[in-house]
Amino acid sequence: MQTLTVGLGERSYPIHIGQELLGEGELLQAYLPRKRVAIITNTTVAPLYLARLQQTLQAIGVSSVPVVLPDGEEYKTYETLNLIYDALLRNRCERSTPLIALGGGVIGDMTGFAAATYLRGVPFIQIPTTLLAQVDSSVGGKTGINHPLGKNMIGAFYQPQLVLADTDTLNTLPDNELAAGMAEVIKYGLIRDLPFLEWLEQNMEKLMARDTAALQYAIARSCRNKAEVVAADERESGERALLNLGHTFGHAIESGMGYGNWLHGEGVAAGTVMAADLSQRLGWISARDVERVRNLFERARLPVIAPDLGTDKYLELMGLDKKVEGGKIRFVLLKQIGSAVVYGDVPPELLRQTLEACVHG
Amino acid sequence: MQTLTVGLGERSYPIHIGQELLGEGELLQAYLPRKRVAIITNTTVAPLYLARLQQTLQAIGVSSVPVVLPDGEEYKTYETLNLIYDALLRNRCERSTPLIALGGGVIGDMTGFAAATYLRGVPFIQIPTTLLAQVDSSVGGKTGINHPLGKNMIGAFYQPQLVLADTDTLNTLPDNELAAGMAEVIKYGLIRDLPFLEWLEQNMEKLMARDTAALQYAIARSCRNKAEVVAADERESGERALLNLGHTFGHAIESGMGYGNWLHGEGVAAGTVMAADLSQRLGWISARDVERVRNLFERARLPVIAPDLGTDKYLELMGLDKKVEGGKIRFVLLKQIGSAVVYGDVPPELLRQTLEACVHG
Repeated sequence: MQTLTVGLGERSYPIHIGQELLGEGELLQAYLPRKRVAIITNTTVAPLYLARLQQTLQAIGVSSVPVVLPDGEEYKTYETLNLIYDALLRNRCERSTPLIALGGGVIGDMTGFAAATYLRGVPFIQIPTTLLAQVDSSVGGKTGINHPLGKNMIGAFYQPQLVLADTDTLNTLPDNELAAGMAEVIKYGLIRDLPFLEWLEQNMEKLMARDTAALQYAIARSCRNKAEVVAADERESGERALLNLGHTFGHAIESGMGYGNWLHGEGVAAGTVMAADLSQRLGWISARDVERVRNLFERARLPVIAPDLGTDKYLELMGLDKKVEGGKIRFVLLKQIGSAVVYGDVPPELLRQTLEACVHG
Repeated sequence: MQTLTVGLGERSYPIHIGQELLGEGELLQAYLPRKRVAIITNTTVAPLYLARLQQTLQAIGVSSVPVVLPDGEEYKTYETLNLIYDALLRNRCERSTPLIALGGGVIGDMTGFAAATYLRGVPFIQIPTTLLAQVDSSVGGKTGINHPLGKNMIGAFYQPQLVLADTDTLNTLPDNELAAGMAEVIKYGLIRDLPFLEWLEQNMEKLMARDTAALQYAIARSCRNKAEVVAADERESGERALLNLGHTFGHAIESGMGYGNWLHGEGVAAGTVMAADLSQRLGWISARDVERVRNLFERARLPVIAPDLGTDKYLELMGLDKKVEGGKIRFVLLKQIGSAVVYGDVPPELLRQTLEACVHG
């Protein structure tokens, strides 16, 4: 087991990464003085891991209220969030009752937002069961739900007290979800950690074959990268925006195709290739660099060509993105491989060229 | 004009109290660098004060998006909150676009919660137009909405950047709403400021006649009391709970009668008399003290007898209250007039006696 800390002053918290953590009650004990929790999970994860977690809790004398939600990005809505509120109220959960998120990014984001807003805030523990959630969404305190007019438009910054990333849960992860998580792993290398990118280029086949040691290394290094960024900029006023490499394009893809049809990581992969293409058009990186980016995503079995929504549709979808400031779209782009920047002065014609060049035509 | 500060470190903010503040653009200017705001108000307040505020903003070069909601506690719901989100998204409001709450407590609570959760948090300014909002809900950062299973169950602690309490707006306030606000004013005297309580006993008729100087004094002193409590305990882990004197009973009355049928302050008045009665049964205050409490509320034209919902219904309604800890109801009670405490060991038979004695029979 490896342990990192997200350093946020009084909101600091540990991330434990390792095998069989779902059985390690003593990691949870200190956070459950009242011996009662609510576990928020979904219909896919519950049959796999809910009973195991409940047994572990029972062994340390903690009773649990399970809340099992429908599975899928299309359920990341107020209506589903309200199922959590209903269950918490009906079971008389109190300000001191922690919520445990057991599942992927959607469960983590919704549970975190429920924790941020139920009774104006209750304690919150993340037990991510997908690669995406282990390396990205469960670290850093971004919580929220989608709105019909845009993804993650409603939410809060709310930090968990503890993150347990049990790598054994990845054994049951479908291949396309493993790949989707890998998109965010690759992202850390691209934006700020060139040695890690090179390590990924050497070890991608091992990772895709679910080699335990390789996965644990990649997860821990991703979490460390994310923890450093979040510690420096909790509320995304500066450096944290770099974590959104590929996300402005990626969110447009996800939204334009209808939530749930493209996985988040798939949108990020194709979107990052678009960001690399745009960086090349600005003269920052070479055609070979773009090829290098594309190649690594392909080895992670991720899409590198975006759907052809039409340029105008892309522009419209991106206009609603949260990273808009003073009416201008601010892109996260690659100054070089291993170093990203936020840039708000993209010439519209270059953007149009990218939107035409990087899609299925 | 009087100015106080709510001291919360980097989240500190000023409260300005005085006449004609809706016309004072320079008080707002520093908070609106981007020259664009959204004003959230309701169908009652908009015809009275929206144009005035928009003119003031226009004079300092700030454009505004008005969002006019239906008026009433029964609209303090997710559905109404979503009208705010919709308007913000359709008007492409960004992370830097402040929300101004122009209205009473419901508008302030909903606007604050929208500000806490839209794009994970945007700036927020309170311009309260009712006495209740000026002395209570606009100060301290409690925001939220009601849930079918309980009042204020969904929300966040989220501080405004500025509060402007324009006492002129009280001229259009209906009598029953003036009285409802006075319930919270009296509360500050009861829980922690005996000299203020004595001042209120001397000046209640002036206040009810809307004497400007008396109102400004009472508002400023109420805000100072609240600011001191909030500064000491922002997230209600201790002293701040004392502000809930009368609220456990009061919420039960409001909820049991159907939201909107009893004004919040009316519930608090009758609820505070119940809390005083229970304090007497515990041997802490005298029958004369209870009479003194009842008498002051009566002079403020507030109800001092609760509706007869039935003892069991009261107990059920209070069981869902946020102030439950470890399965026990923790009451705010009067150790003496001018000094409240939180107490979790009320003998059930005394509580039943109060619930039977203080209602219409």
